[in-house]
Amino acid sequence: MGMTMIEKILAAHSDRDELKPGEIVNARVDMVLGNDITTPVAVKEFEKIGVDKVFDKDRIAIVPDHFTPNKDIKAAEQVNMIRKFAKKYEITNFFEVGQMGIEHVLLPEKGLTLPGEIIIGADSHTCTYGALGALGTGVGSTDMAAAMATGKAWFKVPPTIKIIYKGELKPHVSGKDLILYTIGKIGVDGALYKAMEFTGEAIENLSMDGRMTMSNMAIEAGGKAGLIAADEKTEAYLKDKAQRDYTVLNADPDAEYEKVIEIDVSQITPQIAFPSLPENTKGLDEIEEKIEIQQAVIGSCTNGRLEDLRVAAEILKGHTVNENVRCLVFPGTQKIYKQAMNEGLFDIFIDAGVAVSTPTCGPCLGGHMGILAEGEKAISTTNRNFVGRMGSTKSEVYLASPAVAAASAIKGYIAGPEEVK
Amino acid sequence: MGMTMIEKILAAHSDRDELKPGEIVNARVDMVLGNDITTPVAVKEFEKIGVDKVFDKDRIAIVPDHFTPNKDIKAAEQVNMIRKFAKKYEITNFFEVGQMGIEHVLLPEKGLTLPGEIIIGADSHTCTYGALGALGTGVGSTDMAAAMATGKAWFKVPPTIKIIYKGELKPHVSGKDLILYTIGKIGVDGALYKAMEFTGEAIENLSMDGRMTMSNMAIEAGGKAGLIAADEKTEAYLKDKAQRDYTVLNADPDAEYEKVIEIDVSQITPQIAFPSLPENTKGLDEIEEKIEIQQAVIGSCTNGRLEDLRVAAEILKGHTVNENVRCLVFPGTQKIYKQAMNEGLFDIFIDAGVAVSTPTCGPCLGGHMGILAEGEKAISTTNRNFVGRMGSTKSEVYLASPAVAAASAIKGYIAGPEEVK
Repeated sequence: MGMTMIEKILAAHSDRDELKPGEIVNARVDMVLGNDITTPVAVKEFEKIGVDKVFDKDRIAIVPDHFTPNKDIKAAEQVNMIRKFAKKYEITNFFEVGQMGIEHVLLPEKGLTLPGEIIIGADSHTCTYGALGALGTGVGSTDMAAAMATGKAWFKVPPTIKIIYKGELKPHVSGKDLILYTIGKIGVDGALYKAMEFTGEAIENLSMDGRMTMSNMAIEAGGKAGLIAADEKTEAYLKDKAQRDYTVLNADPDAEYEKVIEIDVSQITPQIAFPSLPENTKGLDEIEEKIEIQQAVIGSCTNGRLEDLRVAAEILKGHTVNENVRCLVFPGTQKIYKQAMNEGLFDIFIDAGVAVSTPTCGPCLGGHMGILAEGEKAISTTNRNFVGRMGSTKSEVYLASPAVAAASAIKGYIAGPEEVK
Repeated sequence: MGMTMIEKILAAHSDRDELKPGEIVNARVDMVLGNDITTPVAVKEFEKIGVDKVFDKDRIAIVPDHFTPNKDIKAAEQVNMIRKFAKKYEITNFFEVGQMGIEHVLLPEKGLTLPGEIIIGADSHTCTYGALGALGTGVGSTDMAAAMATGKAWFKVPPTIKIIYKGELKPHVSGKDLILYTIGKIGVDGALYKAMEFTGEAIENLSMDGRMTMSNMAIEAGGKAGLIAADEKTEAYLKDKAQRDYTVLNADPDAEYEKVIEIDVSQITPQIAFPSLPENTKGLDEIEEKIEIQQAVIGSCTNGRLEDLRVAAEILKGHTVNENVRCLVFPGTQKIYKQAMNEGLFDIFIDAGVAVSTPTCGPCLGGHMGILAEGEKAISTTNRNFVGRMGSTKSEVYLASPAVAAASAIKGYIAGPEEVK
């Protein structure tokens, strides 16, 4: 009997020939990740373990990206604590402000997340690396601490749901719309404790940036992982990037799935997740009311990649942001920042009245750099729209693609790219 | 008997032929300014006055720049409150995130601060406009409220200290060094309740950007104003910018000064203000110890203008920021951001490992975007280095020019441009 992607990856990392859902394994991990919120807790736990070194100084990544550049004294102290930890244990991949980016955009860009690998991160959107054919999954700070010491982590092998995306996407429909549509269909607990495999011609045709957007939001359906088979696009993406050798571990043709879902993507229109759950999705064509917004956020680990900024700029070009809207762009990394700038995207943004930030998670988690007041509504390319996620508990977040966020910024209400002429 | 600049400006705005120090006048103001910290208080006071309109909707500027893009919910609520006020009273010059900049960089750029005018602002660095031959001075929020209602403000005519800067500047010595040197010489209360006039060939030779840096810090010597006579450079700067007619009101040749100070600038080296007062200045050549820094801040209303960024980029070109330093650049306005970007300065910054922010006051006042932890030291082109100004009360700020800040960012300790090869 063949294995699914997650079964194969877990088996290869625990010296097993075969694994079935429900089994528990202690697997080697290829990379351990933490940010400025979770790493301080992990460091304290690590110190309790009493080892005098980390399992591998090149396989730990620490990315202070949530409250950086330091929002306040507390953030400054937290980052300083992990900076000292990184220095003490000679962690190679500590990314200081100025070299950094948003963790889940940065690590793939640096070639630190590779097909067939296991990457655990003390951040829920670690599932992003599924787009590269890797098992990326979020863990708690204690697991991060244990893995920094041992290079291993416990996993219960989850069952896998296979989702087959058939057909061709309409214009302005992106990976973000596919994943929002999927979460709307299966619900925020539709894949709870399960792995998902995103397959089919629509996934094959999707860019790496689009794939990362999809895998990034697997957790929003409760998924342990959102895996995509590594293919020529993955190899092309990793060329000149990969920092280690790797072995592609795609699913066997005869793998056993708990469920197979087929989605005809040709019928999907741009999707909006209404407050206050990512599953509250509607197609733009189904929205009848005029929903005025006060902020549009374009960026984050979900949609802060070059393709995302290109799409937003294409729509904003020659337009200005509505006078009632603040439009904020958060490039994922310094590299993306420079690429986007050199392509002229920032000229378009600045001319349109957009504020372009240095890479940071910023307002996505209500951190800083764009917090909402009571009664305000935002359209955002980020991944969560829970109550109070971006500020006041009486504010609201609508999730959408960069195309819709940009169009809405221009119109002042939730709108599609077609409405911008 | 002739009058000093401040006497002439106050006389013209209170229909007096003559004014002497000590007299009290109720003068018309040409512009009333507030930011996101001070305007909310002014709005509450304004509403108590019980008028149904502002004195002139085109002569009030509200610039949310301190905790924006909104740092937290409190900041969001504050800005939302003043946004509603601006909308209700149809304030023309309300600058939203994306159109904005740091108030004292933005207003001159928009041609809203003109020679011979009185601009009061609920922000201590309103004295910046002295560089344009205007009486710019900081007031409390209550004065701002009263002026928004009446268009007038009470002034006690201050005596004037005339400072004559003679000679030619050494390379890499800037307006920032001149003003730091001056404050070091006369002390932080050296001009308390007094006006200063900055004159002499070194001032005449200084760019408008350099002049604004000098006037900006007049308050750090206690000054009510730091005035510079309007000349051809001022006129050239204002061409195509000035939003109103104006009358130059430079000092009369026979004006009476409380004191005249002469400074030979040819002997001045780059200046550093040590913690925790701007008067604790030393020339770079007088510093013997190696002062390691963890952060370098380039920008703010003091040094966030195009010339400042050009100087920093010139020094950073081909170098990288020291691994122990975060280097942050804060352009003063969106316009400066775009100009600097289009000149290739951001390429240099990004390649060097500098984080470039959207315009905001950010860390200058310990607001956000670069706060210091306990024990950390920063070199900063900002204007104040009081205890805890940029974060922890156990952090320290050294004030300097963009040239010194950039060189120090590269070296990892306080250093001059000559040390960077």
